[in-house]
Amino acid sequence: MTAKNLQELLDQKGDTVGLLRNSQLGTYIYPVVPSEFTNWRREQKAWQQTAVLFDQSHHMFNLFMKGPDALKLISDTGINSVANFPVNMAKQFVPVTPAGNVIGDGILFHLDEDEYVYVGRAPGASWLQFQGETGGYDVEIRNDPRSPSRPYGKAVTRDLWRFQIQGPRAWEIIEKLNGGTVEQLKFFRMGEMTIAGERVRTLRHGMAGAPGLEIWGPYESYDRIREAILEAGREFGMEPVGSRAYSTNTLESGWIPSPLPAIYTGEELRPYREWLGADSYEATNAIAGSFVSDDIEDYYTNPWELGYGSFVKFDHDFIGRDALEALDKDAQRRKVTLEWNSEDLATLLASPVEGAKYQFFDLPNANYGSSNFDRVIDADGTDLGVSMFTGISANEQKGLSLATISPDVPHGAEVKVVWGEPGGGSEKTTVEPHEQFEVRAIVSPVPYAKMARETYQGGWRTVGKA
Amino acid sequence: MTAKNLQELLDQKGDTVGLLRNSQLGTYIYPVVPSEFTNWRREQKAWQQTAVLFDQSHHMFNLFMKGPDALKLISDTGINSVANFPVNMAKQFVPVTPAGNVIGDGILFHLDEDEYVYVGRAPGASWLQFQGETGGYDVEIRNDPRSPSRPYGKAVTRDLWRFQIQGPRAWEIIEKLNGGTVEQLKFFRMGEMTIAGERVRTLRHGMAGAPGLEIWGPYESYDRIREAILEAGREFGMEPVGSRAYSTNTLESGWIPSPLPAIYTGEELRPYREWLGADSYEATNAIAGSFVSDDIEDYYTNPWELGYGSFVKFDHDFIGRDALEALDKDAQRRKVTLEWNSEDLATLLASPVEGAKYQFFDLPNANYGSSNFDRVIDADGTDLGVSMFTGISANEQKGLSLATISPDVPHGAEVKVVWGEPGGGSEKTTVEPHEQFEVRAIVSPVPYAKMARETYQGGWRTVGKA
Repeated sequence: MTAKNLQELLDQKGDTVGLLRNSQLGTYIYPVVPSEFTNWRREQKAWQQTAVLFDQSHHMFNLFMKGPDALKLISDTGINSVANFPVNMAKQFVPVTPAGNVIGDGILFHLDEDEYVYVGRAPGASWLQFQGETGGYDVEIRNDPRSPSRPYGKAVTRDLWRFQIQGPRAWEIIEKLNGGTVEQLKFFRMGEMTIAGERVRTLRHGMAGAPGLEIWGPYESYDRIREAILEAGREFGMEPVGSRAYSTNTLESGWIPSPLPAIYTGEELRPYREWLGADSYEATNAIAGSFVSDDIEDYYTNPWELGYGSFVKFDHDFIGRDALEALDKDAQRRKVTLEWNSEDLATLLASPVEGAKYQFFDLPNANYGSSNFDRVIDADGTDLGVSMFTGISANEQKGLSLATISPDVPHGAEVKVVWGEPGGGSEKTTVEPHEQFEVRAIVSPVPYAKMARETYQGGWRTVGKA
Repeated sequence: MTAKNLQELLDQKGDTVGLLRNSQLGTYIYPVVPSEFTNWRREQKAWQQTAVLFDQSHHMFNLFMKGPDALKLISDTGINSVANFPVNMAKQFVPVTPAGNVIGDGILFHLDEDEYVYVGRAPGASWLQFQGETGGYDVEIRNDPRSPSRPYGKAVTRDLWRFQIQGPRAWEIIEKLNGGTVEQLKFFRMGEMTIAGERVRTLRHGMAGAPGLEIWGPYESYDRIREAILEAGREFGMEPVGSRAYSTNTLESGWIPSPLPAIYTGEELRPYREWLGADSYEATNAIAGSFVSDDIEDYYTNPWELGYGSFVKFDHDFIGRDALEALDKDAQRRKVTLEWNSEDLATLLASPVEGAKYQFFDLPNANYGSSNFDRVIDADGTDLGVSMFTGISANEQKGLSLATISPDVPHGAEVKVVWGEPGGGSEKTTVEPHEQFEVRAIVSPVPYAKMARETYQGGWRTVGKA
């Protein structure tokens, strides 16, 4: 019998990990935006050296919330404080489950009095929508879902276009477009500017220390605004970034886009799972990687493990508060960048013509699922944590991944990432039969900065040669 | 002053090779069709092991020719004989210039009495259109151009969809769809079959010895026909092939899709160059690769060099006949497959994390221009010919390229392909500054078959170790 919702699907399958590890969805796609405008190396380099136009119009959900209880909904569901959350401010909003595990995260914009929009992957948007619709809130909710992954020549439209102007020359382009000074508000504060005669709203953003802006507006003006920005940016070496390079900017900046929504277990979440469709993101998303556990809860992450510990504010009641208060903060895994050993990565990159033994490492984004969990181990093969987003940076000429690992592993330590799935690989459409391969990696800060091997801390279990 | 046509553009630039080598067009894109449905390795393997659905609806021009002089137009412009060209037959049609060099090639379908369609890249279609419109022919011409390379969410439509059902299980799927036997006509003969209740026309095709069909019909039924085929093919392991894998099937079958149209020189072609737009394929296409000559004519190829010698029939008058008759056929370069040394290719594949010294080798299609010309040299560095289409095959787990080289180089000989452009590289958008790298390769037959190194012929200048 066809499952009518996620709960029924889980009940029928009886194996949540198996269901998601063998998902037939394919890799996580950044849709509609062309793959490359020039080439992905050049586009990556532009965000460090000149300026880029990121097109974020298509891959995220926009969940609009309006009404007298909108702020209460946000306060009840987020780890973030709303004590200081005026109009024209944004937050990286993180909802957690009653057990204190992350459901998703995204940017929450305070657009106007009693009016907010959450922008991010499906799981955070779905949770807010469910809570808003079923929790007795006086709030009006409208969900503008992401564009289809494979539009195949069909017309695509959204409510809004959404761009970022980033990079060391970004502010010059912004002021040229505006025809005069644009005030550099604090990070995540919102303002306005003029582009091509149109007034557009802005969110103060930045990359690698250089100020930038996120901007948005009605989709009808998509082409006109985009062309005006690129025209203004030409003299500054601005590059439009294609979908192939786009997602890898996070390897340098350190945001993990893809936690697994921690909603598959817990009796108190049953109504949510009955509300979620059998074709929802939560029901179809693909878990990829070498870390395999029978227990789906082993894939859950809490805010500290993802680097969001400082967002947790016990100044308000929220779902999951008790669980988070009970956590030993200092014992939690912490987010790091792993700098992959180039010699080992070269072995993976050569695999297609050297026996195709290993899981394909695509460039520059090497992920092959919606949520990625690769084992991070020490010299003895002991698990230290998981690597959750992998690719390469033409700026660093390195393979990099974002991981969450034991707090006792110091920066500079050498660990190994196990690339590829056990047992020859799962049935995902992105996986061909393969063997696993252990890649050496240096534990490095977030955001990434090169860690010399000499910084090894005494006492750390280094990978021995003997 | 802005050039109004190709001739004006060439006159303004004064350097045709420089114009095309530094084209800002980017790589040749196979548009609209999703990049991957599962993954490109699996999709490649399916055409050798099970069955595939190729979607050829978007990347080619359809030039419809109708009228009492249609056949005369074809006969006057093609090297091919039309002595035996009844309705429901197709030919690989090759027009050449007065100097006998190839303009392009494509499939010419005899659809009905006095009615034909040419399907292929722009150059062949443009040439036929020009000749048809300016040569005093009583023929009605309609050009349905390829889909935009970067539709960016805009709706795309064509006159026709065009699919191929190929692979060892293809015929079983075809007969299942048809609900009964489908006669296996001779290669390139046309028939009909039924799909989802609709009568569709067929061209007998095939891959690697297994019979297959090309089919086409009105674009309105695109989705319905495609879904019916995939549904029927599921039990046979059929895979839809994405745009990423699609173009590489030719590495195994041996067709060179990308000769440079030989129309930039010759006073008698001036009217054609004045007819061609300053934004035409001919004006914007990118020449890529290590072979660089000041003389654009050094990039021209004649029919023998591309393996079309057997198509040349002097049973009719055609543009270029005199030049071809005067050629010493035995002295012409011949088409071969080059099997790239995997160890050398591994060096290229590792380049992004090992200093990024070399021009990026993308997978599975490594071409970075519209027409590709890489030097093929012997141990002494003497030029033997050019390599014109490069990528890798997951079936062979090899890098392969299609080349045209001196007739005195035997199968089994080891040569070298120079990968990357001289002088740090051109200004193409697909090129980052790089050094060149020489890749060893074994001269192999077309279509590809593995040549053991032991087949070295005595007397051939082998690459010495000392």
